[in-house]
Amino acid sequence: MDKTSRRQALRLGAALGGSLGAAAQEPRSLGRPLSAYGERSRFVKPVRATRVTKTPEAGSSSTPLADTFGIVTPSALHYERHHAGVPDIDPATHRLTIHGLVERPLVLTMDEIRRLPSASRIHFLECGGNSGSEWAAENGPTVQRSYGLASCSDWTGVPLRLLLDEVGLKPGAAWLIAEGADACRMQRSVPIVKALDDAMLAYGQNGEPLRPEQGFPLRLLTPGWEGNVQVKWLRRLDVTDQPYMTRDETSKYSDLMPDGKARIFTLPLEAKSVVTFPSGGHTLAGAGLYEITGLAWSGRGRVERVEVTLDGGRTWVDAKLDEPRLRLAFTRFRMPWRWDGRAAAIASRCTDESGYVQPTRAELIEARGTNSGYHFNGIKLWKISPDGSVTNVHA
Amino acid sequence: MDKTSRRQALRLGAALGGSLGAAAQEPRSLGRPLSAYGERSRFVKPVRATRVTKTPEAGSSSTPLADTFGIVTPSALHYERHHAGVPDIDPATHRLTIHGLVERPLVLTMDEIRRLPSASRIHFLECGGNSGSEWAAENGPTVQRSYGLASCSDWTGVPLRLLLDEVGLKPGAAWLIAEGADACRMQRSVPIVKALDDAMLAYGQNGEPLRPEQGFPLRLLTPGWEGNVQVKWLRRLDVTDQPYMTRDETSKYSDLMPDGKARIFTLPLEAKSVVTFPSGGHTLAGAGLYEITGLAWSGRGRVERVEVTLDGGRTWVDAKLDEPRLRLAFTRFRMPWRWDGRAAAIASRCTDESGYVQPTRAELIEARGTNSGYHFNGIKLWKISPDGSVTNVHA
Repeated sequence: MDKTSRRQALRLGAALGGSLGAAAQEPRSLGRPLSAYGERSRFVKPVRATRVTKTPEAGSSSTPLADTFGIVTPSALHYERHHAGVPDIDPATHRLTIHGLVERPLVLTMDEIRRLPSASRIHFLECGGNSGSEWAAENGPTVQRSYGLASCSDWTGVPLRLLLDEVGLKPGAAWLIAEGADACRMQRSVPIVKALDDAMLAYGQNGEPLRPEQGFPLRLLTPGWEGNVQVKWLRRLDVTDQPYMTRDETSKYSDLMPDGKARIFTLPLEAKSVVTFPSGGHTLAGAGLYEITGLAWSGRGRVERVEVTLDGGRTWVDAKLDEPRLRLAFTRFRMPWRWDGRAAAIASRCTDESGYVQPTRAELIEARGTNSGYHFNGIKLWKISPDGSVTNVHA
Repeated sequence: MDKTSRRQALRLGAALGGSLGAAAQEPRSLGRPLSAYGERSRFVKPVRATRVTKTPEAGSSSTPLADTFGIVTPSALHYERHHAGVPDIDPATHRLTIHGLVERPLVLTMDEIRRLPSASRIHFLECGGNSGSEWAAENGPTVQRSYGLASCSDWTGVPLRLLLDEVGLKPGAAWLIAEGADACRMQRSVPIVKALDDAMLAYGQNGEPLRPEQGFPLRLLTPGWEGNVQVKWLRRLDVTDQPYMTRDETSKYSDLMPDGKARIFTLPLEAKSVVTFPSGGHTLAGAGLYEITGLAWSGRGRVERVEVTLDGGRTWVDAKLDEPRLRLAFTRFRMPWRWDGRAAAIASRCTDESGYVQPTRAELIEARGTNSGYHFNGIKLWKISPDGSVTNVHA
């Protein structure tokens, strides 16, 4: 775009129209001094939204996706999903045990783990139940309530394969049971092929040790798979010939189909995207220039394309994708939009590197019914009313 | 590396040797419930190190580089350098004025800026005075004290070029004076060519609004250039035909050469790297396997190569570089190392995409003398003693 056409596209003067007389007169007194560990401005308010349950230690809280920028979620706002609360673990006494179908069982201290060859990678995490309310007629009013069980961090840790090579897998080793040190000893079964591929024992998140809510001091990362398999407060890996069939892989996080049978171990998350601005609860301050933005991700690899519709899905245009587009990470998309003040219906549609295209909600329900609250990845529509209000609609 | 050679390289069993009897018995009581805005574990202690001055509002604090992971610095630990303290700015009343040699002067509110087309990019920031103590005979004991005025964030904001196109540059426009809203109204002169290239008006950092210490609600980013030019609490851009020749671009942040003349406007930072583990103040717990790691960056583009020496610079081997390697961003390097318990001298050497190779300290002093405390980018040596202690040495 050359300078002239860019200016024509934005017409900032008309949209903004400030005058020099409005310049701020900030105070000139000295500000506060240096600090050891910084905090947000008192004018910045977004927090995680908590789903209250009868047992506050078992619940979830969601990331304010409409208030975050870029692809890295602030650790303090990373979504939570706990089954027995957040344990307070001293890393000096924490141990990881690797046993089962292995030649040389190991117990590792955190100091020992920190001495091993490591890597850092940016990956999204998403709860298998994220946007589960979209299956229902009544859905979450905001993008935080409906889509906020998804976040993205720069994780640091040890490739799990290194340690599995070290302990030596015995013949028949096919699964690995990961167990957390929370009070319920949460367990999930992971196919050994994933453990030998890109799984990681993560101790770092966004440059510092894992936050307690994210598994401090150690969590299992199985990139691109549903969040529940990223076992937090990791204390044990039991190598087995079959899965344990735990609660969270049978009655939970499975998909009950219309014929009464259930899909289980549907672990990789399918391609998904959502517009975060404008989204439910926003009010546009009149016609004019805005930036539509949102997030896309896929458990199958890189996001290749995100299209945006302004007319409820009749026509689509390509959004601009921020670089770098990383495998199994959030990708931020953006599109300038000059709102004419009339009703509109905005949505995004993601295509990943496997060629998979995000389906409509109707297609998803046609294929899977509505028995299950998990693994919803349909196209998400937001309705803009002429008064500027934005609401969550299905069609 | 195949499985066998990897195992031979690591010999984890010998290095670790845990027994199953040592497995932790973590308590099984319920943990704490969900939280609105997360905090670190009480077992995680690293903080910024503050240089105390007579005026606490004018000083710096440094990032604990030996305690950070990956390439993104936690915002709470991003280095600080203030000249009049951290102002407490209400974004609702903050304004940015663009005036001078422009056709259509503008005053913008933060709401207006947030509606413009934006982008997110990961960039390092480094104070022009970082590692200045390395010019002297007495240097900082730790990597935090000597190299901690460097950090890296995911920044979000508006390309400055969009707004300069909008206001329309008049003939003769060659510089842009950026002014902060801190009490001293800190000013720096920026060549217009940089403003039209990759400069950004940043309002986001690591997924949330800028931290107050980093310029909330708005800062100028001139990626790859010395930190002082990334004017914080940005309130004014004055387009001019020449620089203001402010204090911070004449008596400060300039390089007094041996012949008594000074290099000024030495804005792009040259390629640099430093080993963060092991580094000054660490004590190795005996011979065995460790991971050498550190950070490399260049104000000229991408880091292409980092070599590590274990013998004080006689021989060098290539370290592994984390992906993605981004332009004008930290690059993390790593190398497994089996310490034999004998004295060693460890350093890293960075080559950037321009082909520039990080010089030795002696070469730097030969070229520039020691009159100035700015822009040191020499190779940094850490000495390992047989007792495992690590100290900062020049040769």
